[in-house]
Amino acid sequence: MKIKKEENFSEWYDEVLQEAELVDIRYNVKGFIVYRPNIMRIINQLYRLYEGELDRAGHSPFLFPVVIPLSYFRRESEHVEGFEDEVFWVTRAGKHELEDPLILRPTSETAIYPMYSLWIRNYRDLPLKYYQSGSVYRYETKATRPLLRGREFLWIETHTVYPTIEDATEQVKEDMKIAQKVLYEECGLPFLMMDRPEWDRFAGAKKTFGFDTLLPDGRALQVGTTHLLGDNFSKVFDIQFEDKDGTKKFVQQTCYGPGISRIAASVICIHGDDFGLVLPFDMAPVQVVIVPVLFKGEEKLVMQKCEEIRKMLEGAGIRVKLDDRDSSAGAKFYYWELMGAPIRIEIGPKEVQERNATLFRRDKRTREICEEKKLIDAISKVAKDVLNFLRRKAEDHMNKNTTEVATKEELLGSSKKGGFLKMNFCGLKECADEIKSQAGGFEVKGTLFGSENKPKGKCAWCGKRATQVVYVAKSY
Amino acid sequence: MKIKKEENFSEWYDEVLQEAELVDIRYNVKGFIVYRPNIMRIINQLYRLYEGELDRAGHSPFLFPVVIPLSYFRRESEHVEGFEDEVFWVTRAGKHELEDPLILRPTSETAIYPMYSLWIRNYRDLPLKYYQSGSVYRYETKATRPLLRGREFLWIETHTVYPTIEDATEQVKEDMKIAQKVLYEECGLPFLMMDRPEWDRFAGAKKTFGFDTLLPDGRALQVGTTHLLGDNFSKVFDIQFEDKDGTKKFVQQTCYGPGISRIAASVICIHGDDFGLVLPFDMAPVQVVIVPVLFKGEEKLVMQKCEEIRKMLEGAGIRVKLDDRDSSAGAKFYYWELMGAPIRIEIGPKEVQERNATLFRRDKRTREICEEKKLIDAISKVAKDVLNFLRRKAEDHMNKNTTEVATKEELLGSSKKGGFLKMNFCGLKECADEIKSQAGGFEVKGTLFGSENKPKGKCAWCGKRATQVVYVAKSY
Repeated sequence: MKIKKEENFSEWYDEVLQEAELVDIRYNVKGFIVYRPNIMRIINQLYRLYEGELDRAGHSPFLFPVVIPLSYFRRESEHVEGFEDEVFWVTRAGKHELEDPLILRPTSETAIYPMYSLWIRNYRDLPLKYYQSGSVYRYETKATRPLLRGREFLWIETHTVYPTIEDATEQVKEDMKIAQKVLYEECGLPFLMMDRPEWDRFAGAKKTFGFDTLLPDGRALQVGTTHLLGDNFSKVFDIQFEDKDGTKKFVQQTCYGPGISRIAASVICIHGDDFGLVLPFDMAPVQVVIVPVLFKGEEKLVMQKCEEIRKMLEGAGIRVKLDDRDSSAGAKFYYWELMGAPIRIEIGPKEVQERNATLFRRDKRTREICEEKKLIDAISKVAKDVLNFLRRKAEDHMNKNTTEVATKEELLGSSKKGGFLKMNFCGLKECADEIKSQAGGFEVKGTLFGSENKPKGKCAWCGKRATQVVYVAKSY
Repeated sequence: MKIKKEENFSEWYDEVLQEAELVDIRYNVKGFIVYRPNIMRIINQLYRLYEGELDRAGHSPFLFPVVIPLSYFRRESEHVEGFEDEVFWVTRAGKHELEDPLILRPTSETAIYPMYSLWIRNYRDLPLKYYQSGSVYRYETKATRPLLRGREFLWIETHTVYPTIEDATEQVKEDMKIAQKVLYEECGLPFLMMDRPEWDRFAGAKKTFGFDTLLPDGRALQVGTTHLLGDNFSKVFDIQFEDKDGTKKFVQQTCYGPGISRIAASVICIHGDDFGLVLPFDMAPVQVVIVPVLFKGEEKLVMQKCEEIRKMLEGAGIRVKLDDRDSSAGAKFYYWELMGAPIRIEIGPKEVQERNATLFRRDKRTREICEEKKLIDAISKVAKDVLNFLRRKAEDHMNKNTTEVATKEELLGSSKKGGFLKMNFCGLKECADEIKSQAGGFEVKGTLFGSENKPKGKCAWCGKRATQVVYVAKSY
């Protein structure tokens, strides 16, 4: 790595994507990238974490076609308006023009809900908690950036159905808990749970909550959303159920979209440093790498010991790799720091003789000597500590870059250094639009869900009576 | 289930797909189906099995875009010819016509190999063993059938690169071993490893091997293929490496496509019976279901015991479900037999009192009494035995339906009952074409890989000198 993250975050990001062989941007279609094995393993791990939490919460996996017939897609008018300019159209098959053109799913409500209308008959069929994992397609007109904004991106979408709006509201809260578990607890990524203003809701939703994390350059990144759809879609797609009392009612729905590509990007950007990737232990494809430090004449003993330790760690369920390639220990140190292996174990003749191992932790870049027999305990301890360290560091960054502003001048001043700006706000779209155009693209991201923030006095921007406390940020 | 598999296989298949809630065919685009949770869990399990074997063999996952620019796709002429009539075209994005139209990947050689040409520089970069999992798209003109032949299907494709043709040939053998491991050993599906005749090779391949299993109606189903590409693609896409001796050489390649949707279909069709699905233990989403058999006044004791057993099995790593829904034990028996849960444990007051459990195995539909403390051992034993039983049954079916034919009359006669016909063959395409048109669509599937079958005398069809022993079958 040549570029310092602090000095030029954008170039640092490009460099780490290339040097750690994460993605290749040379595929010949704008906004479509190649996911190389090093990122794919991280992404698969993220899918496993997220799907595991969804399964435990009673969700089931399913899969709908990638193409949506125009006739389905056009049924929810608000939804169409929100997406029609950004869909890819399949108009031909073989030598035939299609009579009913198809779109590549930008999201799957209009694919799934006609089927829900067939599947759901009465209250015994509810709740439905289903999710699908995979790619969606949006013809983004904004500048694309690998993993952050692409025309093909990886996510999970859940689609739940309940008899009452109260049940659906509970589901939205469960979605938030799962986001907290995966993003914060397992990936060490702090974020704000934003109740989006009405003009920034998902097309067709009654409520939209966005999960915004903060990248090192001070811009916010939405890493997931959950939407209370209520009966907006069920009325359009005629999804009714017969309740216990015999009456027909429209179902209440939610959908939830954790952005897997963006979570991966956040891990890279927020935890990474000038030496490359830094990965939480549970998420790392290689959790522990063993590097032999060889001296002439003692190679065999050292390699034997390395192999012994490798087996021991593998037996303990650790994803371990013994790097026995024909290159220098120094080159291997460099490589595995770049790749973000959380722990490196160095074994040389001294370690063999003293029945020790040198344990290097990637996050703090510190070494300690550890008795061989205590190695597994030491690794588990470090594993937990890595996550705590990364999370704390990320939280510090977010706290330091969250500024309360009380006036237009303060907002304009603070907007130059980026981050979240917290302010009293009038609640009007016109005011938000003015902020966006005058403060370099800063947007009202919403109010903090579940917070006790009470507005005081006047809107920091327009001076009218404040009705809410909002967070404002420039987004990716 | 109303329809008997023996009496009308085709209708039985439709019924099991619907009754076991596997797929929904009412999605409004021909050849595109909805994968419901019950099949999706089986499919995810198949992916895990296959990817696990690939990972162990040194493969790494990656992911290429779903769209391929026309300029990439058109570079290998034979390949284009093979696929051009069956691709879906993306011609528009938002309101814009695309200048360079895109196709949805029917297979990814032409997407991946331009990138290989950038990634590979010298011998140190080899071998490359990469795979991707997901959907591909083919505008099939043949009649579509859910999971058997669709316009969107789920598979894995591997793409390997080697310095020599010998290495690549070894890779093809490894692919076969992995197919044997997953299909035969883990899923209990016997199949023939067919060296395809030259006119039936993958567009652009030097050799194609197809894995053909036999469905209950006597038709063959290709559940995977592996192709020796040699340097056919590397010459077109300019994938060269500098060898140890400093010379530039074209790489040697292979690709391999296990068809996950079709493997799932084979499991359903071959192992299923008149009561529904029958699943091998390792593949079943629910491996053991516990059904309480309740009598008034003793519900609590029975439910306690059921919960105790559930915890014990879960602790042993078994995917167990306690069916505590409010319906009769009989209805639950019916439901879980339909779903193919390999083992059902029935607990009633008698079992509680005697510290026993009644263990029902789905494959043979037999019951045995088992001491509670020996339950886990009994389950492991049954688990293995289920797979053996299913595999033996499937092999018996395949053997019984493999007939040697020596003359045109025998071929025409045997073709009426279906199955594999084994015969001496002249090796000529004209003869194969004649067989296909006159014997109701029977095709020459190829010679058996690695077999010692020596041709004797004359071609069973045309009477010319036989040069090989081939298998002939009607395919899905």
